[in-house]
Amino acid sequence: MVSRIKRFLIGKPMKSTDIEEEKLGKLKALAVLSSDALSSVAYGTEQILLVLVAVGFAAVWYSIPISIAVLGLLAILILSYRQTIFAYPSGGGAYIVAKNNLGTTTGLMAGGSLLVDYILTVAVSSSAGTDAITSAFPSLHDYRVIISLVMIAFLTILNLRGVTESASILAVPVYLFVIAIFILIIGGLVKFVTTGFHGSVPELGTAVNNISLFILLKAFSSGCSALTGVEAVSNAIPNFKKPAEHNAAATLVMMGVILGSMFIGISFLAYGFGIAPDPKVTVVSQIAEATFGRGAVYYIIQIVTALILFLAANTAYAAFPLLAFMLAKDKFMPHMFKVRGDRLGFSNGIIMLGVLSAVLITAFQGDTEKLIPLYAIGVFIPFTLSQLGMMVRWIKLRPPGWTAKLIVNTIGMITTLTISLIFIFTKFHQVWMVFIFLPIVMFVFMRIYRHYTNIADELRINIERDKPQMKGSTIVIPVAGVTRVVLNSISYAKSLSDNIVAVYIGFDDEEIQKMEEKWEQWNPGVRLIVLRSRYRSVMKPLIRFIETVEWKTAETDHITVLIPQFITKHWWENILHNQTSLLIRAYLYNQKDVVIATVPYRLHR
Amino acid sequence: MVSRIKRFLIGKPMKSTDIEEEKLGKLKALAVLSSDALSSVAYGTEQILLVLVAVGFAAVWYSIPISIAVLGLLAILILSYRQTIFAYPSGGGAYIVAKNNLGTTTGLMAGGSLLVDYILTVAVSSSAGTDAITSAFPSLHDYRVIISLVMIAFLTILNLRGVTESASILAVPVYLFVIAIFILIIGGLVKFVTTGFHGSVPELGTAVNNISLFILLKAFSSGCSALTGVEAVSNAIPNFKKPAEHNAAATLVMMGVILGSMFIGISFLAYGFGIAPDPKVTVVSQIAEATFGRGAVYYIIQIVTALILFLAANTAYAAFPLLAFMLAKDKFMPHMFKVRGDRLGFSNGIIMLGVLSAVLITAFQGDTEKLIPLYAIGVFIPFTLSQLGMMVRWIKLRPPGWTAKLIVNTIGMITTLTISLIFIFTKFHQVWMVFIFLPIVMFVFMRIYRHYTNIADELRINIERDKPQMKGSTIVIPVAGVTRVVLNSISYAKSLSDNIVAVYIGFDDEEIQKMEEKWEQWNPGVRLIVLRSRYRSVMKPLIRFIETVEWKTAETDHITVLIPQFITKHWWENILHNQTSLLIRAYLYNQKDVVIATVPYRLHR
Repeated sequence: MVSRIKRFLIGKPMKSTDIEEEKLGKLKALAVLSSDALSSVAYGTEQILLVLVAVGFAAVWYSIPISIAVLGLLAILILSYRQTIFAYPSGGGAYIVAKNNLGTTTGLMAGGSLLVDYILTVAVSSSAGTDAITSAFPSLHDYRVIISLVMIAFLTILNLRGVTESASILAVPVYLFVIAIFILIIGGLVKFVTTGFHGSVPELGTAVNNISLFILLKAFSSGCSALTGVEAVSNAIPNFKKPAEHNAAATLVMMGVILGSMFIGISFLAYGFGIAPDPKVTVVSQIAEATFGRGAVYYIIQIVTALILFLAANTAYAAFPLLAFMLAKDKFMPHMFKVRGDRLGFSNGIIMLGVLSAVLITAFQGDTEKLIPLYAIGVFIPFTLSQLGMMVRWIKLRPPGWTAKLIVNTIGMITTLTISLIFIFTKFHQVWMVFIFLPIVMFVFMRIYRHYTNIADELRINIERDKPQMKGSTIVIPVAGVTRVVLNSISYAKSLSDNIVAVYIGFDDEEIQKMEEKWEQWNPGVRLIVLRSRYRSVMKPLIRFIETVEWKTAETDHITVLIPQFITKHWWENILHNQTSLLIRAYLYNQKDVVIATVPYRLHR
Repeated sequence: MVSRIKRFLIGKPMKSTDIEEEKLGKLKALAVLSSDALSSVAYGTEQILLVLVAVGFAAVWYSIPISIAVLGLLAILILSYRQTIFAYPSGGGAYIVAKNNLGTTTGLMAGGSLLVDYILTVAVSSSAGTDAITSAFPSLHDYRVIISLVMIAFLTILNLRGVTESASILAVPVYLFVIAIFILIIGGLVKFVTTGFHGSVPELGTAVNNISLFILLKAFSSGCSALTGVEAVSNAIPNFKKPAEHNAAATLVMMGVILGSMFIGISFLAYGFGIAPDPKVTVVSQIAEATFGRGAVYYIIQIVTALILFLAANTAYAAFPLLAFMLAKDKFMPHMFKVRGDRLGFSNGIIMLGVLSAVLITAFQGDTEKLIPLYAIGVFIPFTLSQLGMMVRWIKLRPPGWTAKLIVNTIGMITTLTISLIFIFTKFHQVWMVFIFLPIVMFVFMRIYRHYTNIADELRINIERDKPQMKGSTIVIPVAGVTRVVLNSISYAKSLSDNIVAVYIGFDDEEIQKMEEKWEQWNPGVRLIVLRSRYRSVMKPLIRFIETVEWKTAETDHITVLIPQFITKHWWENILHNQTSLLIRAYLYNQKDVVIATVPYRLHR
């Protein structure tokens, strides 16, 4: 039943050799890996405006210079990450780069914050996508959390099915989104040329009371949320078709150009149309309404925006399991993240990502604005560490042209570090959790590593010296009567050893005497030991007996406890039988160094 | 931890031989077994009045003749059950009497309805007890359900501790209740003598419009709810000190006299004071208030009433587990009800009663009035069957003086049958559930019986002919590498058999080649079979392999699958290891006729 549902949702298992066919071409990669970055356009401008209007509407003109600064930062990031791709063709996420060049601890810091960040990608994208829907259909506003959760469930299943199939489904909306936003920008510009600035719009350079450097930095750092997702390409190089690094670099540049033009276009239109953020209607929705009215084009733009946001979450579904796999391979995360599922995806990573982001959505009640600062700090910490790692690498290796590369990464490092510090400085009350959570994650990574290395040490044998040693064998069979199940177990035991003892635990004299007589009459060739339990417990006398046997023979013999067990035809019939044998098994398994063997007797009626 | 909490709540285990000390003397028996019957006084009169006032206040005078009729019925029941006690000194509940004399099906009908009835006893008594409390303290009215549930939990724990200790605690409030009610009756009568009838009281014999036989019968049957619990003594004879039947009979008569006087007293005072039932204040509370005002005596009466009602539930805690034990002994209920717990009580029955009555209280939101009809029909069906059984017995056995005895039981049977029919006739919309539920319970009893007898047949061996047969032995060891755990398992296997094969499941050629080389180098003297899993599943190739082994050797050999297993030091470390061995074990256990042995290797770090 369960397995049939699984088949229906996830599809038939695939062979390991099918894996090459799952690789991504440039255009598909753009769809799978850049939806996170591109979709940031849907909320980036809004985050800048939210900070500025808090001072007064006159301050919105600052959004133009701030957007240009963000654009500059984007250019720096694209150049830096391009270098990373060529330096680490086997996948150069911040974790690998930081670990290789700055040491394990720094690598784990980058890896840990990226893992958290991917979970936040899913949470932020699905809640922002829900915002786009509820802007268009205000009556859905109360179902925000449920809509987000349904989308997360849908994405999880999609990804369990496997990468290529998801890519085919995902490619279309990403292209549609890019087309739709460009139509919006062109339509908006045409409208703007014919009507000019909205009456209320403050001129560029208008003096504003109360504006401070603090506010401007805060607005700038908020705008940087438009850059989240840029790192996805460099993490996922092994997913590309060959030549992987060239395809990845081309995809990265393509993405940067598209993202930059869309972001600056939206920012300009928001300024030109004099738009102020509204908690129930997104900025993009307002621009679309101002340009086309609430007609078919408006609704298409909203729906496509929602779609790409939901799919942006998909970037994390590609990146999170891969990072978890790398961490697991290095023994910092449980082995289970190394296992490929039936459809070749890292199922455990996919499922974990789905569950944790659903928890986040529920905890934050799907509030995009509150999730974004956490998300951005989670991105900029590994950005910084990755750039720093690249700097160290250039200084160490000094390949041809290393000084130019060092300069690019140094500029990248300084800007991302600055932005991280601005985040901490201006939004500490929203991001402090990261500084508690990150050390915990790193500590857990370390502990897991220690556990695995300890066990490996303990289980390692010396192939030359450690050989199997033969010993004697003593078999103990707890029996509850003279039945076919017991007959079965004794037949089995006699085939293995001559040293067998049956144990019977009785509660009163009459019972015991009857059993002894019956055993003698049957005479199966095995000695019966009878124990009397004054407290009606089977476990305690049996365990004491096994301890006695251990004390006498553990040196010379392997001790086996043979548990006769009949298995009912229907599972629910088990309630009609005392499950003493399960209790015995569980106790021995956890407490005693004896072999526990279950001899099944399957009932037919 | 769990076991320490259990010790604290329930006490230390007791020896089986302690059981005689747990037996009850007459006075203690009165406390344990009669609280149900005596406490019915708290709601019996009220049930009559509820039906009558629906017609008009003038009709309340009918409560006097109806109460006298109920009293007559009580006398008949006491006489009949006295005969049962002497006829069945080993415990003559309706189940035993009906089964012995009327056959198994009728016995199960009586047993089933009694089981249901005991659950209702607990539910009704605890909700009526809560009524007494909320009559005195109206602010607690909203916490009715919680108060009832807490009392049920308390009683369950008390009974898990054992009978005598409970009796010591319970004796006091029962005596206090009897004293308090007699003080109330005497005080009320003194008051009545000085002040005379309340002004509004209709005279006896006043003509009433709309009164019908239907209403009078309904009021009478409602009054019969005061008789619930009378049967408890005859079910519990084995709990009495010797001579058990004489002590039981004396207790029964004592109980009948006390119950009768209290009931008629309360009914008379309710009539004399002109009391009408009120959904928020019980009749007894109104009488007490009219007699003593809302002073100390009033509150004492309410509290003592609440106490005895809660303790009435305790009757069921004595009777239900005993009946379940008898049904289990006859193979109609699961074996687990035959097991005495650490404190010698039938723990499973006690726990089941607690849980089911808590479910009922929650489902009916603690509404006493709705629970009582179900309760009463559940009592009168077994009453009738028990009397019928006794009639058949006298006719069959014809002991000295059998005609007199037959007459007593015949009168008893006819009256209880009539009351059952009145119940069905006048309150069908409240009791129809019983006629769906009872057949289901009986069907389940029959199915359980069939299951046990089938299994007994299947497991029975011929002691002369069926002897242990020796066979060969093939051992299969799934291995995941060359480790200490595997070394351990091979050492064990070699001590038992020469026919051993290790199986390794690899996912790619490189892995497989490495393993084969290492095994050859190690050379443990066991053949290694390597399987390649193209779908990365361990289970499927392994199971196919075991099936091949079965097909080749099942005729001549016992097949053992030896599962090497390392056990982590801390249970939570298990999450770091793939639990493949548990999956293998679970699958083989459920699907294959092979012996499954776990060879533990306990990690020390």
